Amino acid sequence: MSGHAQIGVTGLAVMGRNLARNFARNGFTVAVHNRTAARTRALVDEFGDEGSFVPAESAREFVAALERPRRLVIMVKAGEPTDAVIQEFAPLLEEGDVIIDGGNAHVADTRRRERELRERGIHFVGVGISGGEEGALHGPSIMPGGSAESYKSLGPLLERIAAKAPDGTPCVTHVGPDGAGHFVKMVHNGIEYADMQLIAEAYHLLRAVAGYSPARIADTFRTWNEGRLDSYLIEITAEVLAHADPVTGRPFVDVVADRAEQKGTGRWTVQIALDLGVPVSGIAEAVFARSLSGHAELREASRSLPGPVPQPLDEEAAARFAERVEQALYASKIVSYTQGFHQIQAGSEHHEWGVDPGAVASIWRAGCIIRAAFLDRIRTAYETRPELPSLLSDKRFAEEIGAAQDDWREVVATAARQGVPTPGFSAALAYYDALRADRLPAALTQGQRDFFGAHTYRRTDREGSFHTLWGGDRSEVSAG
Amino acid sequence: MSGHAQIGVTGLAVMGRNLARNFARNGFTVAVHNRTAARTRALVDEFGDEGSFVPAESAREFVAALERPRRLVIMVKAGEPTDAVIQEFAPLLEEGDVIIDGGNAHVADTRRRERELRERGIHFVGVGISGGEEGALHGPSIMPGGSAESYKSLGPLLERIAAKAPDGTPCVTHVGPDGAGHFVKMVHNGIEYADMQLIAEAYHLLRAVAGYSPARIADTFRTWNEGRLDSYLIEITAEVLAHADPVTGRPFVDVVADRAEQKGTGRWTVQIALDLGVPVSGIAEAVFARSLSGHAELREASRSLPGPVPQPLDEEAAARFAERVEQALYASKIVSYTQGFHQIQAGSEHHEWGVDPGAVASIWRAGCIIRAAFLDRIRTAYETRPELPSLLSDKRFAEEIGAAQDDWREVVATAARQGVPTPGFSAALAYYDALRADRLPAALTQGQRDFFGAHTYRRTDREGSFHTLWGGDRSEVSAG
Repeated sequence: MSGHAQIGVTGLAVMGRNLARNFARNGFTVAVHNRTAARTRALVDEFGDEGSFVPAESAREFVAALERPRRLVIMVKAGEPTDAVIQEFAPLLEEGDVIIDGGNAHVADTRRRERELRERGIHFVGVGISGGEEGALHGPSIMPGGSAESYKSLGPLLERIAAKAPDGTPCVTHVGPDGAGHFVKMVHNGIEYADMQLIAEAYHLLRAVAGYSPARIADTFRTWNEGRLDSYLIEITAEVLAHADPVTGRPFVDVVADRAEQKGTGRWTVQIALDLGVPVSGIAEAVFARSLSGHAELREASRSLPGPVPQPLDEEAAARFAERVEQALYASKIVSYTQGFHQIQAGSEHHEWGVDPGAVASIWRAGCIIRAAFLDRIRTAYETRPELPSLLSDKRFAEEIGAAQDDWREVVATAARQGVPTPGFSAALAYYDALRADRLPAALTQGQRDFFGAHTYRRTDREGSFHTLWGGDRSEVSAG
Repeated sequence: MSGHAQIGVTGLAVMGRNLARNFARNGFTVAVHNRTAARTRALVDEFGDEGSFVPAESAREFVAALERPRRLVIMVKAGEPTDAVIQEFAPLLEEGDVIIDGGNAHVADTRRRERELRERGIHFVGVGISGGEEGALHGPSIMPGGSAESYKSLGPLLERIAAKAPDGTPCVTHVGPDGAGHFVKMVHNGIEYADMQLIAEAYHLLRAVAGYSPARIADTFRTWNEGRLDSYLIEITAEVLAHADPVTGRPFVDVVADRAEQKGTGRWTVQIALDLGVPVSGIAEAVFARSLSGHAELREASRSLPGPVPQPLDEEAAARFAERVEQALYASKIVSYTQGFHQIQAGSEHHEWGVDPGAVASIWRAGCIIRAAFLDRIRTAYETRPELPSLLSDKRFAEEIGAAQDDWREVVATAARQGVPTPGFSAALAYYDALRADRLPAALTQGQRDFFGAHTYRRTDREGSFHTLWGGDRSEVSAG
């Protein structure tokens, strides 16, 4: 039994509903289903005239409405709810059908589900979808994993509903097998955390050191948004900072509680980076900054700790400082993306996914939260040199960071002296200086480890592992 | 069937062998067993005269040698080898017997094993043991988890073999139920990573900025070791730095490859801290610094990146700078321990372990790698005020960090300007400044999240959650 709907969406909360509408608006017939049928009816009642919907009350009815091979998008909460829906639908499907998970699943879950369903002849495609509610409706950035075969069936639909980059390219590509799509979406979110933290630090510095008001800082961000920092996040930062609270008339940012929340993908990014051995200090500091802000009791107990009180600068010095902050923000952003793309490449190598980092940059150019002119430069960098060891090795980025570094250093130094926390700027600078260092004190660390744990060390001048008899005559012995 | 050995050790690699010898030297009769019997025989041949050993060739023979309730210490590799040994021995044991895992197990594994064995009436005790080979032999710091009942049987033995603090107290306590011991040992190792990274940064600054030779820096560390930084790690740092390579005559630290390795407990500490929502930026930066040092290709590609070349200071300025570095190191150390103890308290609350942080500080005073005079101050801080929200809330630490902060800030600023990477010092300072901040830019982050994802926010002046209609008239609506 098969119907004529080209795609089905189950789970009609705001993301699922908007995705279904996006498919319908693009000319596809969309089967829609929700555990409580009222939502399905509401969707058809409210938006039925936007395109062709086939409402289904039961799982069986839903599956029957789909043409074969079936394409069935699950838009429910990550974790157990996703497994429950898979368990419900899988027995109703046939070989060659495709289940698409459009939520923010953990890559380990996606890999497990893909493996289990593959054994039953069903394609399971973990798809990262970025862009929030608006993106889902008007065109998100889409990161599908799963088999290449499934993409043949699914790709043409996704290309229609995806955001389009400035050059017209749809922001979707087959990222790689099994969990590659959710992995890349996770790193996208990690980078988003880092971007937001860097912006927060820039704002904090302009407020505390330059002495600017939120409205003035909004103007500064608007100016930056016309240059190389042109991006969705900078744009909305200006909007948020310019907004006055309708209740009190005060700057909106001053009436919002300063406790940042998080939903987990930033944390996963860092946890998985640690397993891969990739330093993602910028993302880690962003996650920590959010958790720190939420420890109300700890903060309350620490308010009386001594520290300097920043002295606002005069107009001219403030303007010069704001320019420096733009340089520091841009340089730190290059480092964040260097770390994030390092993680994508390391994950791809580890899982043998064959992810093309240039293609990832390309599909992040529009639709997603971190969309920015910047991503086109990253795409170009990888296009020019596909084997780029790191974004910092790109000639243009190296030049830009070189030009920015004096100001960047000055901003970090000023923040330290004035008592403004800039964990993201500082971590980025330390990463940059560590990477370019001729010698790192890691040699001392290895010496200490050999001393207390006989963990051995390597030498700069000979092959092999060695151990010094620290408790004896301190001669060196070969350790293989 | 039961024998007369009070304790048994299976797995006679260097840690297991030394632990067995430690028990024997303290008057206990020790059953010893190894998968390959040659090691068991070698132990008895070489060290049999140190005490009473009962060598066992088979698992059955080993179990039969133990008095009841049996106490059986497993000293094999973490992960599958530990599970394999448990599977081998558990069927031979009886209700009330105690299996002790003395390896560095992941706390999730320890919790699982404890649960499974508890169902069979067997006590499973995950024990953290710190101090390396020498500690195992002469007295380690011991962190047992597991049931209180098991500690009644096991505690008196552990108290005999443990290191003794300067006041004579044995460095062992019942940390808490199930995985509490391995958890605390894991955080110990995370703090150890942070301590080592901070020392590495101090060394790097003295070398690059003060222009000191390794031998001169060794002297500096020796001096520091006579003050408040008095600790095992500072002591061995001086030893490593003073050592001349017997092959080349050059400073040892200059012939060691600058690629730091790691075995995983630092990584676990950060991963679990992320799950607990505890900012442990100092430990994270230490783990990242090690992984960064190992990315040879990336470093090679980055050597030509532009940066300042530090200009060594004159003698007087160098001496003054070295004093500042001591202050920065001490202040950063306070922050590392603040973060580590925060994690212990958060883990204890999450698992309802009831860990006493003062007791943890007490048993770290001797035997373990991070042993230091400093830990006695932490013990005192928690003794004076058991409900201390954070180490930084302790009057004495707050005073010390207040006195250190000008120098600390100057060191971080100098490092940024001179291009010396100090991720640990910088992260610690940013944490300190964030904790004491009256307002954090997390409010902006929440505003952005509400803008792009309708994630809502809280207000400073009213209860409840709110959402601004960013796409509409920008009025505010209640969100529950």
